[in-house]
Amino acid sequence: MVMELSDPADQKFLLFEIFKIDSFSKNQKFADFNKKTCEMILKSARDFAVKELMPANRLADKKNGDEDGPNLVNQEIKVPKSYHKPYELFCKGGWLAMCDEEKWGGQSMPQLLGTAVNELFMGANPSLINYPGLTHGAGAIIKEFGSETQKKKYLKKLFQGQYAGTMCLTEPQAGSDVGALDTKAVKNEDGTYSIEGNKIFISGADSDLVENIIHPVLARIEGAPSGTKGISLFLVPKYLTDENGNTLDIKNNVEITGIEEKMGMHGNVTCSVSFGSRGKCIGELIGEENKGMKYMFLMMNEARQGAAVQALGISSASYAYAADYAKKRIQGPLITEAFNPQPEKKTIIHHPDVRRQLLFMKTFIEGTRFLSYFLKWCQDMKEITQDNEEKEKFQGLIELLTPVSKSYTTFKGIDITSTGIQVLGGYGFIEEYPQAQCYRDVRISSLYEGTNGIQAMDLLGRKLGMKKGKPFMDLCSEISKSINNANGAGLNYIGEKLKVMLDKAVNCAIKMGKAAAGEKVMDAFGSASLFLESIGDLCMAWAFAVRACASKEKLGQKISKKDIPFYEGQIITAQFYYDTIYHEALGRMDAVMNLSESVMKMPEAGFYSK
Amino acid sequence: MVMELSDPADQKFLLFEIFKIDSFSKNQKFADFNKKTCEMILKSARDFAVKELMPANRLADKKNGDEDGPNLVNQEIKVPKSYHKPYELFCKGGWLAMCDEEKWGGQSMPQLLGTAVNELFMGANPSLINYPGLTHGAGAIIKEFGSETQKKKYLKKLFQGQYAGTMCLTEPQAGSDVGALDTKAVKNEDGTYSIEGNKIFISGADSDLVENIIHPVLARIEGAPSGTKGISLFLVPKYLTDENGNTLDIKNNVEITGIEEKMGMHGNVTCSVSFGSRGKCIGELIGEENKGMKYMFLMMNEARQGAAVQALGISSASYAYAADYAKKRIQGPLITEAFNPQPEKKTIIHHPDVRRQLLFMKTFIEGTRFLSYFLKWCQDMKEITQDNEEKEKFQGLIELLTPVSKSYTTFKGIDITSTGIQVLGGYGFIEEYPQAQCYRDVRISSLYEGTNGIQAMDLLGRKLGMKKGKPFMDLCSEISKSINNANGAGLNYIGEKLKVMLDKAVNCAIKMGKAAAGEKVMDAFGSASLFLESIGDLCMAWAFAVRACASKEKLGQKISKKDIPFYEGQIITAQFYYDTIYHEALGRMDAVMNLSESVMKMPEAGFYSK
Repeated sequence: MVMELSDPADQKFLLFEIFKIDSFSKNQKFADFNKKTCEMILKSARDFAVKELMPANRLADKKNGDEDGPNLVNQEIKVPKSYHKPYELFCKGGWLAMCDEEKWGGQSMPQLLGTAVNELFMGANPSLINYPGLTHGAGAIIKEFGSETQKKKYLKKLFQGQYAGTMCLTEPQAGSDVGALDTKAVKNEDGTYSIEGNKIFISGADSDLVENIIHPVLARIEGAPSGTKGISLFLVPKYLTDENGNTLDIKNNVEITGIEEKMGMHGNVTCSVSFGSRGKCIGELIGEENKGMKYMFLMMNEARQGAAVQALGISSASYAYAADYAKKRIQGPLITEAFNPQPEKKTIIHHPDVRRQLLFMKTFIEGTRFLSYFLKWCQDMKEITQDNEEKEKFQGLIELLTPVSKSYTTFKGIDITSTGIQVLGGYGFIEEYPQAQCYRDVRISSLYEGTNGIQAMDLLGRKLGMKKGKPFMDLCSEISKSINNANGAGLNYIGEKLKVMLDKAVNCAIKMGKAAAGEKVMDAFGSASLFLESIGDLCMAWAFAVRACASKEKLGQKISKKDIPFYEGQIITAQFYYDTIYHEALGRMDAVMNLSESVMKMPEAGFYSK
Repeated sequence: MVMELSDPADQKFLLFEIFKIDSFSKNQKFADFNKKTCEMILKSARDFAVKELMPANRLADKKNGDEDGPNLVNQEIKVPKSYHKPYELFCKGGWLAMCDEEKWGGQSMPQLLGTAVNELFMGANPSLINYPGLTHGAGAIIKEFGSETQKKKYLKKLFQGQYAGTMCLTEPQAGSDVGALDTKAVKNEDGTYSIEGNKIFISGADSDLVENIIHPVLARIEGAPSGTKGISLFLVPKYLTDENGNTLDIKNNVEITGIEEKMGMHGNVTCSVSFGSRGKCIGELIGEENKGMKYMFLMMNEARQGAAVQALGISSASYAYAADYAKKRIQGPLITEAFNPQPEKKTIIHHPDVRRQLLFMKTFIEGTRFLSYFLKWCQDMKEITQDNEEKEKFQGLIELLTPVSKSYTTFKGIDITSTGIQVLGGYGFIEEYPQAQCYRDVRISSLYEGTNGIQAMDLLGRKLGMKKGKPFMDLCSEISKSINNANGAGLNYIGEKLKVMLDKAVNCAIKMGKAAAGEKVMDAFGSASLFLESIGDLCMAWAFAVRACASKEKLGQKISKKDIPFYEGQIITAQFYYDTIYHEALGRMDAVMNLSESVMKMPEAGFYSK
């Protein structure tokens, strides 16, 4: 058995048994995606990930300027050499826009399947996959908000990977406070705009993988209001194009002025970019003036869910390696053999603390995988259903849970990959083994696409109270159904515990919602991250109830003997969760309920005194 | 105000107000160390750390072979160039053996003061400090177990930094299972031994900072029993010495065969070393044959406490930088200004979630600092007291709490430095800022000196039940005293909560102790890490009770206005702990009480299925 990337049995369990993706094929939109097709796609994605993406991941984990790493030469980026072949195969395989319409070069896959595929790719090579990932994001903006002309010019070229895209938001003085940006746009007589300003932290700002780069750039049109209300969105190409979007031999003034040396994600360049500082830089407006932030926000859900899937993929790769290592590495006898003079040495998976570490990794990977897949299931169901109320319900769940999934999964990714290091002992700290890279790479995902602190503010300030709290109540209804299912399936110890947690979570939500809308608003936001974590905890508890029910049902049927450990393992994982982590999570909810004033009360001089 | 390394106010608070180090000077052994002297030493240590150690820390954070990093040339190590000057000043300053007797080149400082100094040095440059740290460890072995001849030959040269020392335990097949080692020793006619074998993960195995290296090496004498009972400890010099320990121009056969590329701690080389593979390698036995493991174990407490202090120092440096950044970085208006069209932008320390992050860092730094200092206070009290029962009590507390301090502090170091990254947002991931290095460097401390899993086994398997549980009961008595103090000081909300936790912890200890001694031994060890964490949690709760009492007392006195935020901050930190983290900790104790069978029940095939 080769153990690499996400556990295939668990991916299939979620897709086919929990979320029943094959039932989508009853709907015309997804008619092609019966179980067999989905399985084939998953398998070919895994083969591609293992054979082509993974080797380049290790190779390109080098500093800027290293011969195998990225290089900035004459203001242009050369991506790691090893990326060219897998990138070409990736584009040829049609993986870039797998869930988009065929007319734009896509394959119209369900989002749920696309996410299972992305999880594998992200686990195999997150730095490389970020290039087409950003390209897809830029394309999605054009697809959603661009004019027909813009779509025709750019969309197919982006979605087939011939052009690349980026996302140009951040400026040195405007990080989390995007509204503070200074980049300006001046309208030209031909309807285009001249862009001038400096952006930082631009991932994949340039590359030699593609013929041209299309930069979506946030800028303020001369005379527009300050703050977020005066921001517009522009498409700024590296090379100008003709009316069909073909690249002309005329450079727009977009300059790569620097490249950051990061802790991880080395293969994916992070650049500072200067627009129009030494010549004209032409941009096309997307949609209407001053609506740039709205457009960006609408696209943010995809990017934030993507960050979660990235952390999940990397965590899964770390787990696969750790479990494999623990099954092979022999070290010491069992502790029960202390008085045996000739004790048998065991693989370390037999040692209780190593098992606990692996179980910890498994638990949070499987819990957060459920959450990521649930969001995509909602996305697909929203497409499938004809009922507008249902559509709205799914959209509400997506908006509510996106910041939770993003923040919870990316933070847990740190703990999981750190445990992956711990399982290897000293070898975990050595770069020769893959765990250190997983740990370094995953660290970015809680910072970008809105730091996790921003996610907590989004949940408390926008999502919890939206539509009078209906999305949160919808989540509670879904969980209540699972409580009933668990009780009905004889898993009362789960059903009852989940009920206790749900009630506590509802109390937390009421308390936090009220506080955020009243005098205690600052205290509420001081507990916002704790609250987000509690909602994430609730989703974990829910995930293990759903998983245990489906597994118990399966174990009651006639199944192949080799499948039994997986399903038994599901029920044992749920037990581990409810025996241990569940109690810490309840404690965290008690902490939320205290709405501690300490955070705001601390005098500034109390943080490091003299 | 310059904010660097550990908060000086907090160091002084612990030394002078909590642990009353100046009262030691009543004892003849520490007569020189009155308050003024201690303050002067602390100040000069800080000056040296900031001016000499810190610059070299950033400079040497380079891969092996880099011109500023370490290099392996002709089987010899050249440490980073920037280390030579600070190392020389370090030795001249008498910092290497500051707590050892003057006759061996030391300064006879209290351990408590030495640890405050070490915390600063570790925060400033952990990679460099590991060289003299290991040298001290090797010297301490000789001081404790060496013959008079060995002491005279080597001890002053080691303690003054003229020679370096190492610790050669690990072999590829013998990591946590030290007893499986293969290195062998054959007795020569002159009483020396010929050593033959290969060691890995040898920190500071060679260096061009010193004239000679003395390797303490664990090996098995021909014919000795297998396992730990047959291991002896030898001193193996790089160059042979004359009878006075002076270096001769004769190389012993000790070869550096490789150098590991690590995730952090780049300046401190980690080598594979071959003894006697291409010529005679002479070693001297330390103490008696077959007692090597015992000697190593007796020294282990120092090394494990050192790992905790290292993590504490690095965490403190990360916090100082994060707090400083948060006080300077302007980003966005307060959330209460959402409807103000011209809101004032604020430094990010005003934003609730950033405050919470800083408070989280502060809380665990101050809690673990208390624990590290308490251990050293015990060490000094053990020296001072004439009462044998007292001596034994202090020794018991040290042995009980060493694995707790090591594991808890090093794991929290990961969370703290990760939060340090988070406070900086995207800048945290960029190597230009110091947070990434703190995060990478601190990661090793939970792996070496016995992985944290080994610490948990040590606590449950050896320390909890030692002397019929007396050390644990002594800890409980100390905490009970603090409960009474808190109640007496009008801090009943702390006293009562701490009592609840203490009772729970006692129940956990009884349950775990029984299980470990009975049929459920494997389940008990499956919860050992959780149990260790709970005892660490208890120590945190205790620390904040002690801190809050002392601060409340101080605030009742006439104190300088500028000192008020520090003491108020102490009480607010305690409130933060008891409002929030305390509840998660109680939940964790509930988890321990469940003694989950899930860890051992999981079938091996359930860890990644197919």
